[in-house]
Amino acid sequence: MDFDGILGLTAAINGSLADFFDREAGFLKEVGTELDPVADALGHFLLDGGKRLRPLFATIGFLGAAGEVTPEIIRATSSLELVHVCALIHDDVMDASDTRRGAPAIHKQFEALHETQNLHGNSDQFGVAAAILLGDLALIWAAKALHDSGISPAAILRSLPIYDEMRVELMAGQYLDVYEQALASESVERSLKVARYKSGKYSIERPLHFGASLAPDFNSEIIDIYSNYGLPLGEAFQLRDDIIGVFGDPEVTGKPAGDDLREGKRTVLVAKTLSLASSNQRIEFLRHFGQNELDITDVHSMREIIVDTGALNELEAMINEMTVKALESLLGGGIAPEARTLLEEMAVAATKRSS
Amino acid sequence: MDFDGILGLTAAINGSLADFFDREAGFLKEVGTELDPVADALGHFLLDGGKRLRPLFATIGFLGAAGEVTPEIIRATSSLELVHVCALIHDDVMDASDTRRGAPAIHKQFEALHETQNLHGNSDQFGVAAAILLGDLALIWAAKALHDSGISPAAILRSLPIYDEMRVELMAGQYLDVYEQALASESVERSLKVARYKSGKYSIERPLHFGASLAPDFNSEIIDIYSNYGLPLGEAFQLRDDIIGVFGDPEVTGKPAGDDLREGKRTVLVAKTLSLASSNQRIEFLRHFGQNELDITDVHSMREIIVDTGALNELEAMINEMTVKALESLLGGGIAPEARTLLEEMAVAATKRSS
Repeated sequence: MDFDGILGLTAAINGSLADFFDREAGFLKEVGTELDPVADALGHFLLDGGKRLRPLFATIGFLGAAGEVTPEIIRATSSLELVHVCALIHDDVMDASDTRRGAPAIHKQFEALHETQNLHGNSDQFGVAAAILLGDLALIWAAKALHDSGISPAAILRSLPIYDEMRVELMAGQYLDVYEQALASESVERSLKVARYKSGKYSIERPLHFGASLAPDFNSEIIDIYSNYGLPLGEAFQLRDDIIGVFGDPEVTGKPAGDDLREGKRTVLVAKTLSLASSNQRIEFLRHFGQNELDITDVHSMREIIVDTGALNELEAMINEMTVKALESLLGGGIAPEARTLLEEMAVAATKRSS
Repeated sequence: MDFDGILGLTAAINGSLADFFDREAGFLKEVGTELDPVADALGHFLLDGGKRLRPLFATIGFLGAAGEVTPEIIRATSSLELVHVCALIHDDVMDASDTRRGAPAIHKQFEALHETQNLHGNSDQFGVAAAILLGDLALIWAAKALHDSGISPAAILRSLPIYDEMRVELMAGQYLDVYEQALASESVERSLKVARYKSGKYSIERPLHFGASLAPDFNSEIIDIYSNYGLPLGEAFQLRDDIIGVFGDPEVTGKPAGDDLREGKRTVLVAKTLSLASSNQRIEFLRHFGQNELDITDVHSMREIIVDTGALNELEAMINEMTVKALESLLGGGIAPEARTLLEEMAVAATKRSS
């Protein structure tokens, strides 16, 4: 299969997801027209946005293990995007986040459907119920996309243990995150642990492992290389997320300015800020932190504190250090050259992005 | 593997689930002690109750296809109980049901943990978030239990398409149910459609198919027999559920008396009652239906209406008719004799139960 770098792979992944969606939406429609909104909402969520980071890493992980990319492999690696769709839909319910990629979150869409159709009961509750089920369905579709991909039975069987572990780690990481928020912890170390489980493993390391496991020549050496690359890069990726959550441009992120501050998200950036803040800065910061009615002036003053304490610079330095560490892991060989180049590009894409 | 009828199989399934849980709980504990409450709550939910209906049907489905039951097969069929745990945990969040089997629902348990530990933020929101994640984890564990069961690779691969379809149908059925409640539909036909998807297929037919697919000699003839048995019996099962939800003894069901009436659940029983009610009975019934503060006197007067309209009798007749239809499907042969006897027993267990 010919493709032209990361853009070409992304296009192939998008095409594969669109095909999968068409087939599965057809099945839902057979059950009944009541399910049309479910299919529509999932289709838009899946196909209108997303950087396909996890399918990309999985495909490159496969390439690096000397695999030859085929449409079947793309179908299998694309399945990771559906796992991610589940995580995002459920995440928005758990955080009570109302927007995602500039559009209403799924629970808000179904809340609106409930209102428009003048249905009985509580619109809010209906929205949450629908979002829980759509997330569940995405998780099930993910498995189905892998199982139905057309890759060899041996490849499916090799991939399942890693696939399962990845998903367990994801949910464990999500719980750690929710619990951490509730603890209102200010520990940098603890928030780094959450970042490690939530993103370090799930966003990069495990997709690489999963992709490698699809290749017939997959061995434990490449698994180690991918861990050495994926774990630091995954953390750097999450730290970049922390920065975007505070400094991101709403036009680019699709979320309101300073959204993480409004939500009171306990990120590494916040923990760093609080550990470096003077007592005045600390009081000022915590006075606004997690306040729903935060306006743009408050966001600016909090951003100033984050910059003035040096926390932003420290995070940038950490991102840099971890990215360098990730790139160094590629120097020892053991990965197919084409994949190595792509991994270098992906390290930049994952950590220098603005959304 | 020797076992003594349904009780023996149930014991084997329970043992298998306990072993699986121990192993997986160990993994969660390695991630961090923060996850102890997750493991504890899932362990109690999985192991303290449940009739193991779906694993039983799957195991019998396997036996009927001339399979020989082994501990590996029991591990594979037990995985269906974990799918069900996901459905129940998420269902309780969606319905805002506070109790399950006489104990607080998972979201209420984590709401209480949030309060006891004096955590930050909204206890209610924390409870919902935890329950969403625990349900997700149960769904993932279900797949893992199947994949790690030790059955042959060929058997795993044969089972995956049915396993996936079953799970998609489950979530589609759950959405139909949620939507039907919101429509406040009074159509008997529509509520039967929901019953068909929600239970008809998911509780009996699909577990039988899944079990059959684990057997090397599985063929399309047995799939048809299981549909002819499972679909009517699954509907009968759901209708019995409707009756228990209104007339069940709280000591036996672990739910408050008349809980479905309090929740305003749009069941076939309710649709039948409304279609048969006089205008006075209708007014009286709807005055109470779905009222949170329903007391036992109200429940009694609603039960009286359900009996007086003849709706209860009609439902009992439908259950009887469907059960007979299910049993007739076994007469044509095509199923191993041992399984046929067990299916006859299961038809009684599924439709004559009181919880």
